[in-house]
Amino acid sequence: MSEHPVTVAVDAMGGDHGPSVTVPAALEFLARHPRARVVLVGREAELTAALARSVSGARDRASVHHAGEVVGMDEPPAEALRRKKDSSMRVAINLVRDGEAQACVSAGNTGALMAIARFVLKTLPGVDRPAIASQLPTKKGVATVLDLGANVNCTPQQLLQFAVMGAALASAVERVERPTVGLLNVGEEEIKGNEAVKQAGELLRASGLNFYGNVEGDDIYKGTTDVVVCDGFVGNVMLKSSEGLAQMLYEFLRSEFTRGPLTKLSALVAYPVLNAFKRRVDPRRYNGATLLGLRGVVVKSHGGTDALGFRQAITKAHAEVTEGVLERIAQRMATMPGAHAPASADA
Amino acid sequence: MSEHPVTVAVDAMGGDHGPSVTVPAALEFLARHPRARVVLVGREAELTAALARSVSGARDRASVHHAGEVVGMDEPPAEALRRKKDSSMRVAINLVRDGEAQACVSAGNTGALMAIARFVLKTLPGVDRPAIASQLPTKKGVATVLDLGANVNCTPQQLLQFAVMGAALASAVERVERPTVGLLNVGEEEIKGNEAVKQAGELLRASGLNFYGNVEGDDIYKGTTDVVVCDGFVGNVMLKSSEGLAQMLYEFLRSEFTRGPLTKLSALVAYPVLNAFKRRVDPRRYNGATLLGLRGVVVKSHGGTDALGFRQAITKAHAEVTEGVLERIAQRMATMPGAHAPASADA
Repeated sequence: MSEHPVTVAVDAMGGDHGPSVTVPAALEFLARHPRARVVLVGREAELTAALARSVSGARDRASVHHAGEVVGMDEPPAEALRRKKDSSMRVAINLVRDGEAQACVSAGNTGALMAIARFVLKTLPGVDRPAIASQLPTKKGVATVLDLGANVNCTPQQLLQFAVMGAALASAVERVERPTVGLLNVGEEEIKGNEAVKQAGELLRASGLNFYGNVEGDDIYKGTTDVVVCDGFVGNVMLKSSEGLAQMLYEFLRSEFTRGPLTKLSALVAYPVLNAFKRRVDPRRYNGATLLGLRGVVVKSHGGTDALGFRQAITKAHAEVTEGVLERIAQRMATMPGAHAPASADA
Repeated sequence: MSEHPVTVAVDAMGGDHGPSVTVPAALEFLARHPRARVVLVGREAELTAALARSVSGARDRASVHHAGEVVGMDEPPAEALRRKKDSSMRVAINLVRDGEAQACVSAGNTGALMAIARFVLKTLPGVDRPAIASQLPTKKGVATVLDLGANVNCTPQQLLQFAVMGAALASAVERVERPTVGLLNVGEEEIKGNEAVKQAGELLRASGLNFYGNVEGDDIYKGTTDVVVCDGFVGNVMLKSSEGLAQMLYEFLRSEFTRGPLTKLSALVAYPVLNAFKRRVDPRRYNGATLLGLRGVVVKSHGGTDALGFRQAITKAHAEVTEGVLERIAQRMATMPGAHAPASADA
């Protein structure tokens, strides 16, 4: 654990709801972390007023840093990078670069966040491209899965780098000493994966990581390994189809509970279970995807989340700093054979 | 609807349970389809004995065709293709080639089934490679999704062919006149899909199909389009992760129901809902993946299914014949521009 107080820079204007979510979330976070500090980045007058309305005792550990612009949720990343130099997102990331904060959290446009964070912070030594990592619930606990959408095409070396980064994240945040790593692949007998995946398997076997081998889609939720590595196209489809399925099943369950003759009685029994189910698949509980591989901790919150979800994302960023995720990645990367091989296949 | 009685060749030895599942399933199917016929392919003595034990009135529409070998569930497809010329799987497919049956159903080794079916039956004109298609439940009904694992790497032309085949299947079996087709892609702003997907989008826009555009993972279960097209790597991961998630949620739900003080009362309310949930995610209900693009109807049943699930697969094969899926594919393929362009990227 770091002994220094941690400051988190919060893009207070990002996301679907802006300060009405980010400010209460930041204060709730501070109330739970008595040594932490938050810098709220965005329109000063608006943020100062929002803080002034709060009665939180943690208010004195929150400061405001002005930024006059906001990156739009649908703004092309390249444009946000080039034109919005005074956006709340960019200024929050600048604070991390300048050492005024140790982590940054934003609920804004993912593509823009990735582009700006990569440009401003740069990647860690040995990392070609950052990946998006998140924890998914499993039968046994959680699995750290990456890449969830940053890189459509990945070289075998990049998949190895993801494995190194994912293992560092899992060992830091989930406190697994030697996390097992699975390579997401297909199970049909005729097909043993594409070339990149096959070569990544060879690199992983030689890597010194605790490599389990290939895993299939269902292994993610079985909790077969602590870390699951895949390219961003596959990861994104997997994550979104899972979200869609969970949502469909929740709605199905709710409608099943509210029909039939036992309605009143049902309600008594049903609501706790329905609520438990909802919590189980609630994206807020798992809110906060890490942009992994940068020279700084950057956490992306879901754009539509509420204060509970956004607080979750700040908490995650804070934990990644106190548990030394960046140092762990750098350390593992330095001793990794094969991770720095041929240039990226990415556009 | 075809006016001719349909004969389905059943690989009676395939799957985890063999004749103890396939024979009762075939008889149940026949009882529900009074004009249909089934040929049970496998070890004659065993199958004749199984039939003799049955009291089904449909027994006289089931015949036995001997085949002395069985393809193992883990046997390499190339080996099964080369060495097991008298396997129940191969002989069942031969019956389709020879016109003695109009469709074949097997719960055996998927890779071997694909390899043998492709070798024996060949693909339809204009189809480079067959795909695995299946119906998944959605909020609105079902979506026909392909490829679910036959082709790891796909050219844009192959993705277009999958769209043509999927639309033909949906229009035949789901009776949607002009099925909407979605191209599975990633939604993050920075990434607009890999090259093959981008080019497939262009081909689809020019195809005359009812092309909706790109869809994301959650659109599958939202029921955004009738057909969803993707390569076999992505499709396989999506399908298996969905199965894993549904299974995890079912187990979670069951354990939630059986704790707390209201246990007896809970049971009254809970069991119907739990059962409804199980039915909803029950793979047996959707059992039967179609090997699409061959000169013959071939349906793959899940290896571990029971008689209900296997009957479902036979019923699906039967429907594909009576609804003229092959004719619809051939017809659409003949008028399709761009579907026959550069050679396959597949290994």
